[in-house]
Amino acid sequence: MSGTSLDGIDVAIVDIVRKRGAVRIAPVAFHGTPYPKLIRKALLAVSNSTTHTATVARLNFLLGELYASALVDTCRRARIPFASIELCGIHGQTIFHEGAPIGYLGHRIASTLQIGEAAVVAERTGIRVISNFRERDIAAGGQGAPLVPYVDYLLFRHRRIHRVALNIGGIANITVIPPGVGQVILSPADKVKSISSPAFDTGPGNMVIDALVARHTYGRRLFDRNGRIARSGKVVERLLKSMLRDPYFALPPPKSCGREQYGPAFVNRLIATGIPLPDLIATATELTARSIARAISEHTRDAREVIVSGGGVHNRQIMRRLRELLSDLAIDSSDAHGIDPDAKEAIAFAILAFEHVNGRPGNLPSATGAQRAVVLGKSSPAY
Amino acid sequence: MSGTSLDGIDVAIVDIVRKRGAVRIAPVAFHGTPYPKLIRKALLAVSNSTTHTATVARLNFLLGELYASALVDTCRRARIPFASIELCGIHGQTIFHEGAPIGYLGHRIASTLQIGEAAVVAERTGIRVISNFRERDIAAGGQGAPLVPYVDYLLFRHRRIHRVALNIGGIANITVIPPGVGQVILSPADKVKSISSPAFDTGPGNMVIDALVARHTYGRRLFDRNGRIARSGKVVERLLKSMLRDPYFALPPPKSCGREQYGPAFVNRLIATGIPLPDLIATATELTARSIARAISEHTRDAREVIVSGGGVHNRQIMRRLRELLSDLAIDSSDAHGIDPDAKEAIAFAILAFEHVNGRPGNLPSATGAQRAVVLGKSSPAY
Repeated sequence: MSGTSLDGIDVAIVDIVRKRGAVRIAPVAFHGTPYPKLIRKALLAVSNSTTHTATVARLNFLLGELYASALVDTCRRARIPFASIELCGIHGQTIFHEGAPIGYLGHRIASTLQIGEAAVVAERTGIRVISNFRERDIAAGGQGAPLVPYVDYLLFRHRRIHRVALNIGGIANITVIPPGVGQVILSPADKVKSISSPAFDTGPGNMVIDALVARHTYGRRLFDRNGRIARSGKVVERLLKSMLRDPYFALPPPKSCGREQYGPAFVNRLIATGIPLPDLIATATELTARSIARAISEHTRDAREVIVSGGGVHNRQIMRRLRELLSDLAIDSSDAHGIDPDAKEAIAFAILAFEHVNGRPGNLPSATGAQRAVVLGKSSPAY
Repeated sequence: MSGTSLDGIDVAIVDIVRKRGAVRIAPVAFHGTPYPKLIRKALLAVSNSTTHTATVARLNFLLGELYASALVDTCRRARIPFASIELCGIHGQTIFHEGAPIGYLGHRIASTLQIGEAAVVAERTGIRVISNFRERDIAAGGQGAPLVPYVDYLLFRHRRIHRVALNIGGIANITVIPPGVGQVILSPADKVKSISSPAFDTGPGNMVIDALVARHTYGRRLFDRNGRIARSGKVVERLLKSMLRDPYFALPPPKSCGREQYGPAFVNRLIATGIPLPDLIATATELTARSIARAISEHTRDAREVIVSGGGVHNRQIMRRLRELLSDLAIDSSDAHGIDPDAKEAIAFAILAFEHVNGRPGNLPSATGAQRAVVLGKSSPAY
């Protein structure tokens, strides 16, 4: 997995065991490899930007090499025999995403573009690779995002308790998980297709905060460790209110957002206000917490627990504010449920690859807006 | 199939029957749909050019829609029941190709980029789609081209006669086909992997001629029908000699070229000479014929027959010059062998899709330079 925060490559190794028709998911190893600075810079330069076709093509193949190395490296570190890996799922690095159709050359077109060539990973490793998960959902009329809700449902569904899975990556998103029979174990007989859990991007996660921190520290830091800078600054209420007026927050789900909304242009507008950077960081942090809390209170009535994953779980200021804003809910890291909060998204794409191979759909139409549940991804053979 | 000439979408429908372990290939229908002008313009603007990532993403999905429509339309015209189509192979539209590795961000990277989203075709048609054939060959150290030689071998191999398959598309390429047991029928037991037929791009095919014709006719014509303009002009010997001195022609195979060498920059240099356009067209036509003839005489000693396919077969001036320059060889359209010369490349990708599904390699390492024969393509499920 490589997220919209463009920070690197997360490899999760997962045991997925089928037993009497049921599926059991057990995380085995996890390792994150930051992108080298040059690569990160190159990725930023092609993401939702003007570039040369050559750059897209070359970066696609180069990322394939880096993904293959990261996989080999993670196996070595965790002393997992390489030959025991049966299947690999690659999300790829999103360099463009437009989930809602626009008018384009006389057609209505939604689109998404991930790079990180699966054929390179398959050729270097001899492992079958499933890649390009979002395209088929868009082809079926969906927004191509979010895809993790299906996996949230598999991982966190509880027999009696209404839960919310919250992931705070570059963008933040929630999955509302109504109670249901069966817990982490999913039987293929489950009518997954008929679940209608709302799931959507709530707005910015760490993306705006990270970009402001990089400016504030002249690139020496890429995120606000423990939310310390945010705590040193002061929330600028007027700016916060104006940001919260963005009609996106009032849109009904399904909806998704990304670097297109909260990328460099957004950050540059914030900096242009002349407000001191620690105050901007405090305000962006509050924006993340407030937009998440609003989404959770508006779209869940019976929820009792919020299970948090993604880098934002380490930002104490975000977590503290969420606990204050949602004081009647239990808010915990996914760690408490056996899932490393940093590994969840990577684990999700291992599971989606497994679903592809078994011919099972991986999207929730209620989350993406697709006309139907479809088998996600393209398969590159092992040899 | 959509070729480098950017003229449109060719759909070939092929019966591939397996009988007692042998494979028989029978063309059933063929239809070419020109790209609408707007689309062609948009494709030209992203091919090996500076563009916005959004344009690449949107065009990828839009082309997927056009491919699906072209497939449905071809079935309707030929009155072929849609449900009888079992498998679809899509080459896609190449918008960048760099078969030889270059230094890039500290790595040696070769790359290729085709658009035309397979997930859209699979979703619209309910047919399993194999796409993105070139990436795996590049991952295996090949140039990602040419891929048709493997199919030339399947289609045209003769028990005793040494043959050359020549395709004159935007770029021209040849496959040398040494005689072998079995003819059009290929048994899976064949040691296809061990063939070492030289096969490579000989240089420009129609690409330079077409671009000059478009300039000469202010866009009213896109190719030189019957080679008439070429015959009205005079070959400029000095210019021809200087073009033939391009070190590409002396390079040993494997080698490939494309729009990168013979695209707008090349054509603009020709026009900048001030030589009248009919003379430039005559000279470009002679360049195509001479570079093909040189490649055939230098790389085949025992060849007796040249089987020609691609749009260039309709250019009488090219064919006449080839017959003069290679007077001891029989030069015929692939029609004489039961293969519509306009359909051959499209037929080739149907066959490569079939090979993928059967787990058989589709590249000839002797043609692409790959370290090994690999299964080409990515598979998108029917549903």
